[in-house]
Amino acid sequence: MKELVITTNSYDEKDIPDLGNRFLTGNGYMGVRGTLEEYGKQQLAAVNLSGIFDRYGDGWREPLNAPNPFSLQLLVNGKEETLCPDNVKSHEQLLDARRGLHLRTTEYMDGTSMIVERFAHMEQVHLLCMNVVIKTKKDAHVRLNAAIDGDVWDIHGPHYRDMSCKENGDAAMVVGCTNEGDSVAVCAAYHTDAHCERQSMTENRKQITAFQFECKAGDMIAISMTASVFTSQDAQDPLLCAQKFVLESPSYPLLRKSHIQTWASLWDKANVEIEGDAEAERALNYSIYHLLCIAPRHASSLSIPARGLSGQTYKGAIFWDTEMFMLDFYLAVLPDVAKTLLRYRIDTLDGAREKARQYGYEGAFYAWESQEGGYDACSDYNVTDVFTGRPMRTYFRDKQVHITSAVVYGLYKYARWTGDESLWLEGGAEILIEAARFYYSYLVKSLKSDVYELWDVIGPDEYHERVNNNAYTNEMARFAFLQAVEISQWLKAEHSDEFDALNQKLNFEDELILFSQAAEQLKQPTQTDTGIIEQFDGYFKLEDTAVDAVRSRLKDPREYWGGAYGVASDSQIIKQADVITMLFMLRDQYDANIVRANYDYYLPRTEHGSSLSACMYALSACMIGRPNDAYPLFLKSAQADLVSGGKQWAGLVYIGGTHPAAAGGAYMTMLWGFLGFDYSRDAWSVAPKLPKGWKEISCKIMWHGKPMKLSSKTTKG
Amino acid sequence: MKELVITTNSYDEKDIPDLGNRFLTGNGYMGVRGTLEEYGKQQLAAVNLSGIFDRYGDGWREPLNAPNPFSLQLLVNGKEETLCPDNVKSHEQLLDARRGLHLRTTEYMDGTSMIVERFAHMEQVHLLCMNVVIKTKKDAHVRLNAAIDGDVWDIHGPHYRDMSCKENGDAAMVVGCTNEGDSVAVCAAYHTDAHCERQSMTENRKQITAFQFECKAGDMIAISMTASVFTSQDAQDPLLCAQKFVLESPSYPLLRKSHIQTWASLWDKANVEIEGDAEAERALNYSIYHLLCIAPRHASSLSIPARGLSGQTYKGAIFWDTEMFMLDFYLAVLPDVAKTLLRYRIDTLDGAREKARQYGYEGAFYAWESQEGGYDACSDYNVTDVFTGRPMRTYFRDKQVHITSAVVYGLYKYARWTGDESLWLEGGAEILIEAARFYYSYLVKSLKSDVYELWDVIGPDEYHERVNNNAYTNEMARFAFLQAVEISQWLKAEHSDEFDALNQKLNFEDELILFSQAAEQLKQPTQTDTGIIEQFDGYFKLEDTAVDAVRSRLKDPREYWGGAYGVASDSQIIKQADVITMLFMLRDQYDANIVRANYDYYLPRTEHGSSLSACMYALSACMIGRPNDAYPLFLKSAQADLVSGGKQWAGLVYIGGTHPAAAGGAYMTMLWGFLGFDYSRDAWSVAPKLPKGWKEISCKIMWHGKPMKLSSKTTKG
Repeated sequence: MKELVITTNSYDEKDIPDLGNRFLTGNGYMGVRGTLEEYGKQQLAAVNLSGIFDRYGDGWREPLNAPNPFSLQLLVNGKEETLCPDNVKSHEQLLDARRGLHLRTTEYMDGTSMIVERFAHMEQVHLLCMNVVIKTKKDAHVRLNAAIDGDVWDIHGPHYRDMSCKENGDAAMVVGCTNEGDSVAVCAAYHTDAHCERQSMTENRKQITAFQFECKAGDMIAISMTASVFTSQDAQDPLLCAQKFVLESPSYPLLRKSHIQTWASLWDKANVEIEGDAEAERALNYSIYHLLCIAPRHASSLSIPARGLSGQTYKGAIFWDTEMFMLDFYLAVLPDVAKTLLRYRIDTLDGAREKARQYGYEGAFYAWESQEGGYDACSDYNVTDVFTGRPMRTYFRDKQVHITSAVVYGLYKYARWTGDESLWLEGGAEILIEAARFYYSYLVKSLKSDVYELWDVIGPDEYHERVNNNAYTNEMARFAFLQAVEISQWLKAEHSDEFDALNQKLNFEDELILFSQAAEQLKQPTQTDTGIIEQFDGYFKLEDTAVDAVRSRLKDPREYWGGAYGVASDSQIIKQADVITMLFMLRDQYDANIVRANYDYYLPRTEHGSSLSACMYALSACMIGRPNDAYPLFLKSAQADLVSGGKQWAGLVYIGGTHPAAAGGAYMTMLWGFLGFDYSRDAWSVAPKLPKGWKEISCKIMWHGKPMKLSSKTTKG
Repeated sequence: MKELVITTNSYDEKDIPDLGNRFLTGNGYMGVRGTLEEYGKQQLAAVNLSGIFDRYGDGWREPLNAPNPFSLQLLVNGKEETLCPDNVKSHEQLLDARRGLHLRTTEYMDGTSMIVERFAHMEQVHLLCMNVVIKTKKDAHVRLNAAIDGDVWDIHGPHYRDMSCKENGDAAMVVGCTNEGDSVAVCAAYHTDAHCERQSMTENRKQITAFQFECKAGDMIAISMTASVFTSQDAQDPLLCAQKFVLESPSYPLLRKSHIQTWASLWDKANVEIEGDAEAERALNYSIYHLLCIAPRHASSLSIPARGLSGQTYKGAIFWDTEMFMLDFYLAVLPDVAKTLLRYRIDTLDGAREKARQYGYEGAFYAWESQEGGYDACSDYNVTDVFTGRPMRTYFRDKQVHITSAVVYGLYKYARWTGDESLWLEGGAEILIEAARFYYSYLVKSLKSDVYELWDVIGPDEYHERVNNNAYTNEMARFAFLQAVEISQWLKAEHSDEFDALNQKLNFEDELILFSQAAEQLKQPTQTDTGIIEQFDGYFKLEDTAVDAVRSRLKDPREYWGGAYGVASDSQIIKQADVITMLFMLRDQYDANIVRANYDYYLPRTEHGSSLSACMYALSACMIGRPNDAYPLFLKSAQADLVSGGKQWAGLVYIGGTHPAAAGGAYMTMLWGFLGFDYSRDAWSVAPKLPKGWKEISCKIMWHGKPMKLSSKTTKG
């Protein structure tokens, strides 16, 4: 397996947010931003926790950042070693993605050097480990302030209303108590063989352990740290738990070994080889690295936020990204994780019911930005106007009703892929009924017609708000109606007791005929003679212009393209793949001519303002036999976090972070696109369409519970 | 009859737009802005024509301003007499509203004085007349440049692509040819008994006739002018016509006499006496003056623009203002004019049908901003954003569907008031069918319910766009359904041939049952326990705040309060009476407790950003026995053009001009409110509710073709 190492020599201030994402490490329980050890909240340092949230005042509800035990300050002869050009001789930051290790090496002008290796343990997911090595060129007094930094980065904080810091001889510890009453404990134990003076102090929400060494020229000092993180969701007494955990844990070298072993076994399943294109192989495996870092392998019901574990952006919430863009990777590589992701939707069904009720609908209206319990963290004002500084009323929460169909589609994919029908019995079938009920209650019809319509929705292309009969939404709703009917029939036939129990609970059997009828009578999207599908009613009447023409109308680079008066709103310029996403997801129903017509029409009208866009076009390009056209779009998705330049703003709202859906989309493009993988209920096939220069793709996937090796030389399953 | 004279001594630049409105003269064919004779387009001088429009390039389609024959320049000893404080000894501008005369008197520092009287002839509506008197204090060379000024004020012009100016010994003439191919001819003949040298010249779209006098101290020179205005809509050869007309017309004194006589006969019908409140009487009669100035007495099918004949604002278009706010005055005073206004709607039915087709509806969707033929001049971008300078997508044209019900309501009122059922046979009944068809095709229903709904509309309160089930709209649509059924039944019973002919044309008889059903099943507005009617679905959930609180959020005084992100959009603050307008219009259906509850609720939440608002609250206040509360709101309406301070901007779009709907609303308040006039099919009554200090109201109205005298002492008809 080829090494996969990412490096940079930059410590320039302007690169810090980007590098924090690019050098992220994580283990599904937490993500550690790839910031350097000197950094604090100003530099967006964060140990981002999965699945635990807090609201401060009227601000947005966000995931927590734990107190950061990776905080270091180095002083030589009383002078702080700072990261500025006139104090740095050389500097390198390195991510070893095969081993999940983050390494920084800095040599300062005075000849002192510091090497820090750290990782989030891939098996013991509560553990954060670090090893610091300091070398001096001359005799010197060296002081290292190692801290648990509780003065964390919060976007809409402070989330800790209280923070207590202490030390008990064995370990330093910081416990934060949130506004909502949760607590987060971080406990760190340090070890060094070198002779030193050791002191503890508390300063501004930091618990500092200071090590002082009298060094001779050429001395090399090593200090290791093991820290554990527990929250009140993990244990009744997270501090006690954290303390116990850290004190009983093995030494740094042993932890490092087991960590690397876990990574090796994950890579054994996940690695993709692309013969003939090292750049693509590297980018794709780097994407996979991120998908592995954030996979909730430790949980049985948990999902992945849209920005992974890279911070509080997008409120740490679960979007349709998970089911539509990430799930395929987990189905292929870690099917248990896929199940965990879907169980999260089963366990948040009540939240979705509650949301439907709030808006006056029946069934289940899943949260657009889902937090624990299915709470919808999406604000009614999700974008800030750059000209007035005022929040803009957005309708993502109210009108992006396609979210419920994404959950249905995820369940459908799981059963198809794994052959495991257990999720239907564990709550999946109930979701289908409630999803169909939701869409049924959303339907309207004109009195003069028997066509059912879905009015006032937002499709994937968020630049056009509150449209009628969005093609993607209508077709996915139709899919949801049909799934509800099909799985109900299967349940009745195969698991009649479970069917009866469910029917007793929901009393839905009589509604199935209505769902069938709705699937039949739901409005078909308008289609031109050449097969171009109108994105929504009236779309073709909008100004037909070019992306660059619309871009040239911007008066502020950060202004929002959508909403009521955005530069794109009254034009045919769309944020992201919309009809094209529908054509891929429901690819059984469309022939290549339709895909081709729509690909050619919509691609030049797409801004790709979402990282979910390029991969859908890449997949479509493959579907119509144009892998070379797919290639740059694939690379764009695979490199979303590897190169700078992504969209950082929606109006005045910061939206930076990692892009796991783009990573998942890159994987999908490799699998469904270039490899040409496809499946029916019981069989699979590959029909490779390799871009220019590619010789072979090889990967392993799990299919119906069995590992398989696929390559572009395979022909038929 | 008391004199009604308005004066000002101001010639301050900042007052010019206001005074242009306040001192307006007109005769229904044209309106002459109350600007001084020195003024040109910079000072918004205009002779605004009724019912003739032009579009330049992509600009808004606007009514034409004719070349202005009231242009004068006075030079004494070669020096121009300018209107600046160091050249003016005294100045007065005067409007004699009883005689329809505009008078200006200016004495300059050098002792010269100029007195100009002018009028738009009230019977010979093509004629504009002027008499200039110049007095000098010392011997002087006096030159008067009298011009027809073709360099007219245009908002979205130039509307004349060509202008020819000439003189033929008898008269000066200017003919403009518009972008749409119409022509407008103005021909002016001058007369003076004084010895003078006379010269003609053409300069910058002006045909100037220069008079030069050698004056002795104390001399008084008089020059009169008669000008006629004809357009290609009036005659095949408008220039020939204008020439003939002006040369055959009587002398200035005779024209003045007949003009004053016509005014006297109009005032004899229209005057209202309010004993005990001279201010109110004056304001109301001033409002009536404006309604008389713009009444199309010369036509049989023509309507009145929302800003009267005061300029090109609001595109010279006909809004719901005419039927809902002005019509009652004409019904009461000039029923033939009321019929003319409604015939305009009959004659534009095809335009309304065409608009319905364009939007995918059936029946008749009347123009929001109606020009000739029912062409909808309303732009999709009717407001400009003050922060970006960009046009904002507005939905007045698409979604303000209540306009069609206003036409229905106007026809209904005409028949009720006059007892004249002829309009039903002349096309009125056809409108009813097409109106009901339109609303029927607009209805939607949820699949889960039998309630019919009107989604995605804008009610009178334009600050809240694209709402569902606006109470006003729903109830007026219900009214339209019921009228269609009722008048159809009457037609069948009383005029079976006409019914058959209409049914042969429209084949509607089977639809009547659907209309009845729609009237029954159309959603009833939500009502609280205390009777407060929710303005639209979800209104009560909006931020409940105060008008001043919302005003304090403005960052620019001109910014638009409505649209998607206006300061009022997400609050319960409304632009104007909405539910309250419904309660007045459909007053038979609501008892005083309901009116009271809604009046108390909505009044403090109303910004009165429309001049249509105050009168509706005034009427409601009377309905609940609070005439003293009505009084200031009545006065606000009556004084809309008498005092400064009205709203001049919607975003960056200038919306100044006269307010005939407010004038009509003031009249309505006097009649329906304070006098307590009401009628059933055959009878009328008054139940006076006089505000404090008022002793008696007296007026004359026409009722079922007969003149009647009403006063607050009358008891029963």
